[in-house]
Amino acid sequence: MAEYRHLDYMLLDEKFSEEELMVRDAVRTWTSERFIPLIMDHFEAGTFPTELTPELAELGVFGPTIPEEYGGAGLNSVSYGLICQELERGDSGLRSFVSVQGSLVMYPIYAFGSEEQKREWLPQLASGKAIGCFGLTEPDAGSNPGGMLTNAKRDGGDWILNGRKMWITNGTISDVAIVWAQTEDGIRGFCIPTNLPGFSAPEQKHKWSLRASITSELVLEDVRVPDSMRMPETTSLRNPLMCLTQARYGIAWGAIGAANSVFDEVLGYTKERIVFDKPLAGYQIPQAKLAEMATQITMGQMLALQLGRLKDEGKMTPAMVNMAKRNNVHVALNIARTGRDMLGANGISLEYQTGRHMCNLESVYTYEGTHDIHTLAIGNELTGIPAFR
Amino acid sequence: MAEYRHLDYMLLDEKFSEEELMVRDAVRTWTSERFIPLIMDHFEAGTFPTELTPELAELGVFGPTIPEEYGGAGLNSVSYGLICQELERGDSGLRSFVSVQGSLVMYPIYAFGSEEQKREWLPQLASGKAIGCFGLTEPDAGSNPGGMLTNAKRDGGDWILNGRKMWITNGTISDVAIVWAQTEDGIRGFCIPTNLPGFSAPEQKHKWSLRASITSELVLEDVRVPDSMRMPETTSLRNPLMCLTQARYGIAWGAIGAANSVFDEVLGYTKERIVFDKPLAGYQIPQAKLAEMATQITMGQMLALQLGRLKDEGKMTPAMVNMAKRNNVHVALNIARTGRDMLGANGISLEYQTGRHMCNLESVYTYEGTHDIHTLAIGNELTGIPAFR
Amino acid sequence: MAEYRHLDYMLLDEKFSEEELMVRDAVRTWTSERFIPLIMDHFEAGTFPTELTPELAELGVFGPTIPEEYGGAGLNSVSYGLICQELERGDSGLRSFVSVQGSLVMYPIYAFGSEEQKREWLPQLASGKAIGCFGLTEPDAGSNPGGMLTNAKRDGGDWILNGRKMWITNGTISDVAIVWAQTEDGIRGFCIPTNLPGFSAPEQKHKWSLRASITSELVLEDVRVPDSMRMPETTSLRNPLMCLTQARYGIAWGAIGAANSVFDEVLGYTKERIVFDKPLAGYQIPQAKLAEMATQITMGQMLALQLGRLKDEGKMTPAMVNMAKRNNVHVALNIARTGRDMLGANGISLEYQTGRHMCNLESVYTYEGTHDIHTLAIGNELTGIPAFR
Amino acid sequence: MAEYRHLDYMLLDEKFSEEELMVRDAVRTWTSERFIPLIMDHFEAGTFPTELTPELAELGVFGPTIPEEYGGAGLNSVSYGLICQELERGDSGLRSFVSVQGSLVMYPIYAFGSEEQKREWLPQLASGKAIGCFGLTEPDAGSNPGGMLTNAKRDGGDWILNGRKMWITNGTISDVAIVWAQTEDGIRGFCIPTNLPGFSAPEQKHKWSLRASITSELVLEDVRVPDSMRMPETTSLRNPLMCLTQARYGIAWGAIGAANSVFDEVLGYTKERIVFDKPLAGYQIPQAKLAEMATQITMGQMLALQLGRLKDEGKMTPAMVNMAKRNNVHVALNIARTGRDMLGANGISLEYQTGRHMCNLESVYTYEGTHDIHTLAIGNELTGIPAFR
Repeated sequence: MAEYRHLDYMLLDEKFSEEELMVRDAVRTWTSERFIPLIMDHFEAGTFPTELTPELAELGVFGPTIPEEYGGAGLNSVSYGLICQELERGDSGLRSFVSVQGSLVMYPIYAFGSEEQKREWLPQLASGKAIGCFGLTEPDAGSNPGGMLTNAKRDGGDWILNGRKMWITNGTISDVAIVWAQTEDGIRGFCIPTNLPGFSAPEQKHKWSLRASITSELVLEDVRVPDSMRMPETTSLRNPLMCLTQARYGIAWGAIGAANSVFDEVLGYTKERIVFDKPLAGYQIPQAKLAEMATQITMGQMLALQLGRLKDEGKMTPAMVNMAKRNNVHVALNIARTGRDMLGANGISLEYQTGRHMCNLESVYTYEGTHDIHTLAIGNELTGIPAFR
Repeated sequence: MAEYRHLDYMLLDEKFSEEELMVRDAVRTWTSERFIPLIMDHFEAGTFPTELTPELAELGVFGPTIPEEYGGAGLNSVSYGLICQELERGDSGLRSFVSVQGSLVMYPIYAFGSEEQKREWLPQLASGKAIGCFGLTEPDAGSNPGGMLTNAKRDGGDWILNGRKMWITNGTISDVAIVWAQTEDGIRGFCIPTNLPGFSAPEQKHKWSLRASITSELVLEDVRVPDSMRMPETTSLRNPLMCLTQARYGIAWGAIGAANSVFDEVLGYTKERIVFDKPLAGYQIPQAKLAEMATQITMGQMLALQLGRLKDEGKMTPAMVNMAKRNNVHVALNIARTGRDMLGANGISLEYQTGRHMCNLESVYTYEGTHDIHTLAIGNELTGIPAFR
Repeated sequence: MAEYRHLDYMLLDEKFSEEELMVRDAVRTWTSERFIPLIMDHFEAGTFPTELTPELAELGVFGPTIPEEYGGAGLNSVSYGLICQELERGDSGLRSFVSVQGSLVMYPIYAFGSEEQKREWLPQLASGKAIGCFGLTEPDAGSNPGGMLTNAKRDGGDWILNGRKMWITNGTISDVAIVWAQTEDGIRGFCIPTNLPGFSAPEQKHKWSLRASITSELVLEDVRVPDSMRMPETTSLRNPLMCLTQARYGIAWGAIGAANSVFDEVLGYTKERIVFDKPLAGYQIPQAKLAEMATQITMGQMLALQLGRLKDEGKMTPAMVNMAKRNNVHVALNIARTGRDMLGANGISLEYQTGRHMCNLESVYTYEGTHDIHTLAIGNELTGIPAFR
Repeated sequence: MAEYRHLDYMLLDEKFSEEELMVRDAVRTWTSERFIPLIMDHFEAGTFPTELTPELAELGVFGPTIPEEYGGAGLNSVSYGLICQELERGDSGLRSFVSVQGSLVMYPIYAFGSEEQKREWLPQLASGKAIGCFGLTEPDAGSNPGGMLTNAKRDGGDWILNGRKMWITNGTISDVAIVWAQTEDGIRGFCIPTNLPGFSAPEQKHKWSLRASITSELVLEDVRVPDSMRMPETTSLRNPLMCLTQARYGIAWGAIGAANSVFDEVLGYTKERIVFDKPLAGYQIPQAKLAEMATQITMGQMLALQLGRLKDEGKMTPAMVNMAKRNNVHVALNIARTGRDMLGANGISLEYQTGRHMCNLESVYTYEGTHDIHTLAIGNELTGIPAFR
């Protein structure tokens, strides 16, 4: 396999700091050397290479923006974006694994948890000794999380949780779960170990996308939880939505990684594949596809970078994340589809990266806010009128 | 599962004869009752349900336009088209299985074979007692079959065949293979049993598309073949291209079946799925997608039907098939992609038909002439100037 | 200028009767010989060549499906469709002129008028001695005609009409106007001469589309109208909507004419235009555009034809017209945009047909139901749930 | 008319220097106050408001990056980009006027001219006292400028020029022309006054796009020119291509101005336009259009800005300009088309900005390198294989 080359048509590399580039290159190398050789078999088998968890922790990709005192790396958001980009260059499932751990488990504990919760879980999560999951989505409330049915009822000083979550990444292999539930006073988040009685997390099977990622149901049947497991700063639906904003931020970067993986593979293929005595890359129709791919990657990279800089300056709004997640995933999916086509019959083989990325990106297009929900969120921002319902 | 309803927005059903509708409905019922309950497991396992072969033969779908004296059903081309449509409503792999048997094996034997070859193989193939495959494509000559390297050399009254074919549907499970090879006098076709010494057909693995279809390499190492296995009416590349025209004809119909399967599933889903207190089907953005789907299915159906009528009248040209295959598969693929998105997270589960169709159609988009090759064939027809190379 | 050639890629001409082909060819020849030489100057000047009205009447294009006893030609709907197609091959403004006269003036008089109204106006309109217009749309109620403000109030045996209509084709040059107004009992239609006191029809200027078509406001200020000018069979909004269905039917055909005009011009241009020593038509990117154009024209033609056959059989529904108008105009507009691009700099000159068609089709895309309104109408038909509001 | 608001969804304004913003705002205000009130009438009449030339000179928009010693403003390239953006917000014809003057006349004189030529022409051009044009394109060599037929033959110390140029902006009203011609030694550029015997510049009529811009033929019939009018540093086709790179740079910015003009108008319109009791902006389908528009404008703006920064750093390559011109014009054209549709019938009136922008952008899409030529230039950059011919 030829060495990976990331497209930099407009010299954006010059915009990153030395530290950012070091982080990026470390993850890029690791993905090439350690992850990509394994991914085909895991995707086919429907498994995640959990044996790599310690290496990922060593790389520092779990909650890298969390302060060092809690076991994080204290990196900036652009670095975190670059990590997501390089991991998703490997596989969207890998980036999902890391996104959930960092943005959907460590972030809410850090932002909404008690000091005790932070001390207990953040170092374990950062070091990969514990795996976490995020229980928000329910079977009948994908685009309307406020309609959740899972509930928590007071019982003395404890809470009794009941409900069913679905499409939960890492659920089956988690040590700790962030669970969102309706209470008398509104939505609250709980940070609970997964070995409590009444809690189970059966794996969801029959996926053809994100196969190298564990997806689970969470089933809560009279799970008794002390009040100390409630995250004290959670007060409403706004809290899980803040988590989603963190995760979507990473997706906006990750999609550029997947797109680049496709572009690199396809560009190489068309330059080597001879059709009627000249490389496929020398024909007009393939060039038209490559030109559009390169343009979209370039702009998507700019969007992610600007988003990251604004995040580090404290100026990023959810509406900005809507735009970047929506565009970049859409772009990546289109690129993967076009790339699949350009590989011809080889495009349907898992021996190539492109088809797998295409399959994965179908999930990414839908999760963390479907494409259309982001469309309407942007529409709302522009017009001031909600059109969701 | 709700009963399947095929879209008929513009009353095209009135254009079919009673016999045609009978054939269609028989296959439609069989697909619903016998095939669809099995397909998810076979797709996941990467197997074809060969146990259904006798039932398919009983249905009369193997070479249905072949005269009855050779074991065929003597149906017209529109009936054959409808068969393909209904089978591909089940799975593109199922239609592929039948296309190869009929259009790529029985057709060339009937059109180019000796009387002895016809008597030997056609009844066995029609009855499903023998399975056949079609060996044209080679690893480095997908869109340029004239560049094949497989060759047949005279050795006394025999031929010695050497070469390697790839992406051969049914290869591993075939009893008979149509093999195309270069000779001193140009390209010739051979109709050979697969148990000859030197012939092997290892399965190609690692596919994420058409998983319920067997794809194989054919490896020919000094395979000795008597001249009686040469198909005497084959004289040039024109012959295998004629076979492809037959197969593409069936694909143009089949794609409409896949598209309808998606449409039916998605329409039902959006009508039942409640989002913010009303069905998803009641929102503008989903309706826009459904309206476009329905329009494209309606036009694709018209295209297939007109093609079929012209075929039965002896007026169909390859350039017409280029248009219908290209358009209908493209339309079906777009519909499957949109449908996948509309199913939300469920769209990535094999418990739904749509995602599997989407994955399959990526193969169909590329095989039997890639989309772009058909584009250039139409361009050639319109302008009189070839732009393939 | 080379002779016009209408694309017939899939031998649809065989589907027309001899009479239908005669009608088509007569109009085609007239358009080539009499209309196209004039159109550039009229488009630039913003005028319609009213001097051609007698010739159009002679051709029989005004209300051709109206029975002969009222001056019509008693043709079938497919013939009417072909007339629209051939006229719009000349210019959308020309087809609009004829559509209004036939579908929006003669049709409602014939369908909803009194015998006296029919006797008075239909022969005059058929012979081009009178020109008519159709006053439905209002400035603030384009996609919601039920929201019209124009009203008719009883005053003894008379009615007093007040209101303002906009975007009324032919208004300024009309002798008779069909005016829709709210009454105490619902919406009613009036068939009134335009020389009544209080009626005026100032021309709307500053258009860059349909410039060879007169567009007007209708201003009604206390226009006194005897009850005999009310069309007695009008009872609700349903009546003007039925008229629109007639007109949209013609547009579905007309758009194919415009698309063919573009295709013919562009195909000829690319075959003659030499770029780097070979015709533009010999390159891959232009061929991809031509192939898609030809496919869409072919399918649009099929859609129009099937619609026409169903109309003649009494089976056409408004929802079918929604699909055909929406698709065919969209297709024609896309073809005109692509064609404009393919003509290079020449594409912006009125010395070519294509740019003018492109400009015109922007109006056609919006009038008689915008593209999106048709989308939602189809969505409503498919789902049973209205999403217009 | 409401005040113009330029979209800044991702806080890009913070990336401009104070000086850059001052330049931008001055031009923005001038365009709103002085230009937009006039444009409709000029577009309709097919005239350019030459009376504004002194004001434009006063604003400093003619050759703003030329050093002050030659009459320029010595601004950076980003400022020049912003000028183009703000002018094209008014009309592509206005930006074209200024682009030609600066990038295609002043630039080559500055870059390739003799000191005498610079002293003679640059101050006059900067002050608007002279108008210039750029004669490269010929009727049969749009995308292949190397195929030009115009030639210059030595005759003693003079040159005799013969040939015909087409699609020359400002030709008819120019005082000076940069004319490119074949010589025995290759292509050379001449800087000649337009009053030489044998030189004429008849206006090209019948345009429906860029109507507020003068387009001309240049006819050179034995035009005798002293060698001092040859630009001494011109040596090959590379020189005019360098000029085109300058002009395309400005177009990449200008297109964002046109797109913003459309977006601003359409957003305002949909928020005010009531359909069925709520603003059009409150429906899903319009919001989907607005969201995509905003995304594309945001990314196009980023692309232009990065290009400008690289240009000021001396790192901009022609291949980068290919990407930015191609993408941004395409985006602007798509936005204008969508915006036209969203304005409904009003979209075809010149009383709105959008339709005019749409018509204009068809020219911009094609000139200074057609969209497809830029596609192939990017393809060449990516693959290293030219596919132009």
